[in-house]
Amino acid sequence: MPETFAHLLEFFANPRPEREYEIKIDAPEFTCLCPKTGQPDFATIRIRYVPKARCVELKSLKLYLWSFRDQGHFHEAVTNQILDDLVALLAPLRMLVEGDFWVRGGIKTVVEAKYQAK
Amino acid sequence: MPETFAHLLEFFANPRPEREYEIKIDAPEFTCLCPKTGQPDFATIRIRYVPKARCVELKSLKLYLWSFRDQGHFHEAVTNQILDDLVALLAPLRMLVEGDFWVRGGIKTVVEAKYQAK
Amino acid sequence: MPETFAHLLEFFANPRPEREYEIKIDAPEFTCLCPKTGQPDFATIRIRYVPKARCVELKSLKLYLWSFRDQGHFHEAVTNQILDDLVALLAPLRMLVEGDFWVRGGIKTVVEAKYQAK
Amino acid sequence: MPETFAHLLEFFANPRPEREYEIKIDAPEFTCLCPKTGQPDFATIRIRYVPKARCVELKSLKLYLWSFRDQGHFHEAVTNQILDDLVALLAPLRMLVEGDFWVRGGIKTVVEAKYQAK
Amino acid sequence: MPETFAHLLEFFANPRPEREYEIKIDAPEFTCLCPKTGQPDFATIRIRYVPKARCVELKSLKLYLWSFRDQGHFHEAVTNQILDDLVALLAPLRMLVEGDFWVRGGIKTVVEAKYQAK
Amino acid sequence: MPETFAHLLEFFANPRPEREYEIKIDAPEFTCLCPKTGQPDFATIRIRYVPKARCVELKSLKLYLWSFRDQGHFHEAVTNQILDDLVALLAPLRMLVEGDFWVRGGIKTVVEAKYQAK
Amino acid sequence: MPETFAHLLEFFANPRPEREYEIKIDAPEFTCLCPKTGQPDFATIRIRYVPKARCVELKSLKLYLWSFRDQGHFHEAVTNQILDDLVALLAPLRMLVEGDFWVRGGIKTVVEAKYQAK
Amino acid sequence: MPETFAHLLEFFANPRPEREYEIKIDAPEFTCLCPKTGQPDFATIRIRYVPKARCVELKSLKLYLWSFRDQGHFHEAVTNQILDDLVALLAPLRMLVEGDFWVRGGIKTVVEAKYQAK
Amino acid sequence: MPETFAHLLEFFANPRPEREYEIKIDAPEFTCLCPKTGQPDFATIRIRYVPKARCVELKSLKLYLWSFRDQGHFHEAVTNQILDDLVALLAPLRMLVEGDFWVRGGIKTVVEAKYQAK
Amino acid sequence: MPETFAHLLEFFANPRPEREYEIKIDAPEFTCLCPKTGQPDFATIRIRYVPKARCVELKSLKLYLWSFRDQGHFHEAVTNQILDDLVALLAPLRMLVEGDFWVRGGIKTVVEAKYQAK
Repeated sequence: MPETFAHLLEFFANPRPEREYEIKIDAPEFTCLCPKTGQPDFATIRIRYVPKARCVELKSLKLYLWSFRDQGHFHEAVTNQILDDLVALLAPLRMLVEGDFWVRGGIKTVVEAKYQAK
Repeated sequence: MPETFAHLLEFFANPRPEREYEIKIDAPEFTCLCPKTGQPDFATIRIRYVPKARCVELKSLKLYLWSFRDQGHFHEAVTNQILDDLVALLAPLRMLVEGDFWVRGGIKTVVEAKYQAK
Repeated sequence: MPETFAHLLEFFANPRPEREYEIKIDAPEFTCLCPKTGQPDFATIRIRYVPKARCVELKSLKLYLWSFRDQGHFHEAVTNQILDDLVALLAPLRMLVEGDFWVRGGIKTVVEAKYQAK
Repeated sequence: MPETFAHLLEFFANPRPEREYEIKIDAPEFTCLCPKTGQPDFATIRIRYVPKARCVELKSLKLYLWSFRDQGHFHEAVTNQILDDLVALLAPLRMLVEGDFWVRGGIKTVVEAKYQAK
Repeated sequence: MPETFAHLLEFFANPRPEREYEIKIDAPEFTCLCPKTGQPDFATIRIRYVPKARCVELKSLKLYLWSFRDQGHFHEAVTNQILDDLVALLAPLRMLVEGDFWVRGGIKTVVEAKYQAK
Repeated sequence: MPETFAHLLEFFANPRPEREYEIKIDAPEFTCLCPKTGQPDFATIRIRYVPKARCVELKSLKLYLWSFRDQGHFHEAVTNQILDDLVALLAPLRMLVEGDFWVRGGIKTVVEAKYQAK
Repeated sequence: MPETFAHLLEFFANPRPEREYEIKIDAPEFTCLCPKTGQPDFATIRIRYVPKARCVELKSLKLYLWSFRDQGHFHEAVTNQILDDLVALLAPLRMLVEGDFWVRGGIKTVVEAKYQAK
Repeated sequence: MPETFAHLLEFFANPRPEREYEIKIDAPEFTCLCPKTGQPDFATIRIRYVPKARCVELKSLKLYLWSFRDQGHFHEAVTNQILDDLVALLAPLRMLVEGDFWVRGGIKTVVEAKYQAK
Repeated sequence: MPETFAHLLEFFANPRPEREYEIKIDAPEFTCLCPKTGQPDFATIRIRYVPKARCVELKSLKLYLWSFRDQGHFHEAVTNQILDDLVALLAPLRMLVEGDFWVRGGIKTVVEAKYQAK
Repeated sequence: MPETFAHLLEFFANPRPEREYEIKIDAPEFTCLCPKTGQPDFATIRIRYVPKARCVELKSLKLYLWSFRDQGHFHEAVTNQILDDLVALLAPLRMLVEGDFWVRGGIKTVVEAKYQAK
């Protein structure tokens, strides 16, 4: 697993921490490298979460997602990595990350991972 | 957080306060500024509520939504702000506000917040 | 609130009062005036009801809906008014009236009101 | 109410009376006359039923539906009449008849009536 | 033919009279009265034109179209009237007006008239 | 060929005889009888024409089309008959009539006939 | 080539032989047999023609098309055969016949043949 | 009821009898004869089942469905017959057969029958 | 049943074994041979699973699915075989495999099999 | 270039050689191998031609197209090969062959080749 760029992610204070509300983010311009062949992979990353004290700042999220461009990742690893990095930063009430990858070798793959605060 | 223009909002007396009925409002022409870059953001604001004693007057709602044009707001803040201002004015039985923002930096965001009278 | 034209509404005896069945009516050619500016408003009025002893006669319903053409009404008031007038005439088992209004000032509004016999 | 042509309807013995199965019939070529103006009305008649001992013969159903061509009927009456005539002939386990009428005076009407054997 | 309200129409100077460009206007909220029965008619008015020295001012066009609300007109007359009034005001290079009327008596009508400067 | 009801058709003076413009009429509620079996046929009648001195009055057209309800006609005959009757009444610059008939015996038929003034 | 059933086809006198107009017929319930395997083939037969003195009678066309049900034909032969039989009967000004056959062995075939009177 | 061709159906041993899984089969090329008029009927036959010890072999199913080609059947009878023959052969855990027949006399019919092992 | 190529399948360690998440794989380029006729069959294979310790490596899955290219399989057998081989390799929490096969002999077949860890 | 299987192709005598008509064939189940990697490629082969003395027999065409299953071909070569083999067999008036290949390495390719008799 290559090093991650979680340090690029920034947050701002949730403007209504006392209210349970939902934020839905779609990022259709994600690209990384295949860890076996080095060839580029493309995906849409979908994020849905209910914040507690923190919200992810969108420009930093864009830079964070761009930082995968030259790294090799399995589809399953990158989707879980994004979920882990965002959970570590935000400690949300709950979060879903879906990696929807383009066809490779005639095969299309979607990975969906969830987090629920205890 | 910039000052708000809640004073622009007007209400009229609910013509049937004894009946529980629903009002759905879609405002696709919302624009404000990004609080970090000053660039314009665009959104559709969707409001659904069940009134008690008061209904929001639509022309005043239009002026209120226009008043965000020159203010900087995070997506999460503006959506919650609209919900707060309308709840403060109307004291409805329940209300939902959804801010459906256009793509920025290759990323699309939707924020959904709800209020329920106790 | 302007005077209403409920006297235009006519009914005929429900041909099967012993059976609980549903009647769905869509009237997309509704127009009235804005009570604040006097400008025309347009809407589709949707009615669904389960009759008891009476059914609304359709030509009289058409004339009744036309009678709003020169009157000023808030969206919320006109939708509730139609429900009230039809309930007063028909005493149905249950009824729903939806006023689906066209865009005004960049804002679209739908009002939905229901009646249930006790 | 004009006389009905229920005598045109024929049945055949349900080939599997011991099995509870469903028959769905759509007749989009229905026409009758308006009882107030004598003008033609058009509708799609939809029938769904679970037979007991008898099934309706389709050619006789076609002739029966054609027999309304020169009769005046309210939408509510004709829909219930078709349900009554078919229930009287077939004594089904359950049946639904929907009369989906074309626009008249800018108004569209759908009537839906159901029967359930006790 | 009732008197017309062409005096309501206003223009402003075409900002690029030296360029041949097209303006397309759709007005779906048009209503007038049937000249034979006095009943309301509804239509979408579509206008396409290439201006010369003048462009129609939109708020005045709205008021002009509203002024037909209480007048009786044949579909063919109202469509040509709008074309004539706009041509008289604007003297455009060319113009098309289409009156797309809702169903009346089971019949839908569209009238399309064109003007071409010589 | 049964007698025709062309006498039901009425015209009004073309409000802009000096302009060449088009009128498009769709009548989806046409029904007549099969001349061989006496069974009902259904069709949409589409009319497009450029008037000279006369326009067809729509209510009279509705009554004229209804007058085929009890007559037997081949699809080809009825479509040409409508074209002939309208041409005789209106003497238009050009006219197209299309009879779009519903499925009979698993076969769908459309007949399209045109007139051009010399 | 099996014997044909052209004798089933009937015509009636074209009601407007002096006018050049078009008749379009779609018959989606065509079936015949594969001449090599004896297995059933299915097709939609589409016919478009401009008549001279004669029109094909639709019930006879239905019976004629049904008569292929037990005959073996190549797709190319049956499409040309229908064109030949109709041309021999009707002597039209021009005619097109399209045989649009369902998938066989993973392969879909459409045959299109035309006739033009000299 | 004509004799059936159930003897044409073949099965093969379910490759995973210990697992409860579903098989969905669509056969859009079904044709039989009307038992009253001898005219051809067309349908799509849809089969869904959960096998126990046996699966239906598809080529034999094709031949079995073809064997109805020259037999007269009511829609209700043929749909139940196919269900009965398949249940007798396969003894499945559960099975649904739907006969979706084309328009006849302006009327469309769908018959749906189910089997559940006790 | 031909020998299988399960040895072609490779796995990699699930990067988040402690989390229950879902992987969805669509492979529309599957082809094998008919076990009765030797003719090619085509299908889309759809896989959905929740991993425990192992994820299937996608390039090895592609090679595994290609290895069916020259083998004869009933639709039901191949779908269950793929499920069995993947379950044996991965021991997932749960898995679904759907084989969606193209039309053969006018018949379309879909097989759906599921696995659930105890 | 691997050896071809043109000997599998059969023809039958064009049933109407004196008429110029068109035959359109779509074969969506084509597969061959990549000449560089040995990996399977998938395509839809579309053929349109106007025959002279000969038509291609469809079952032989199916077997011919299947014969590419184990051969390596560039997209451009296989499309031209099919055109050459069919032209050599049929000597048509004109023919078009289109190879519409599935995505490989994120790239979709279509090859279109034509023949015109001199």
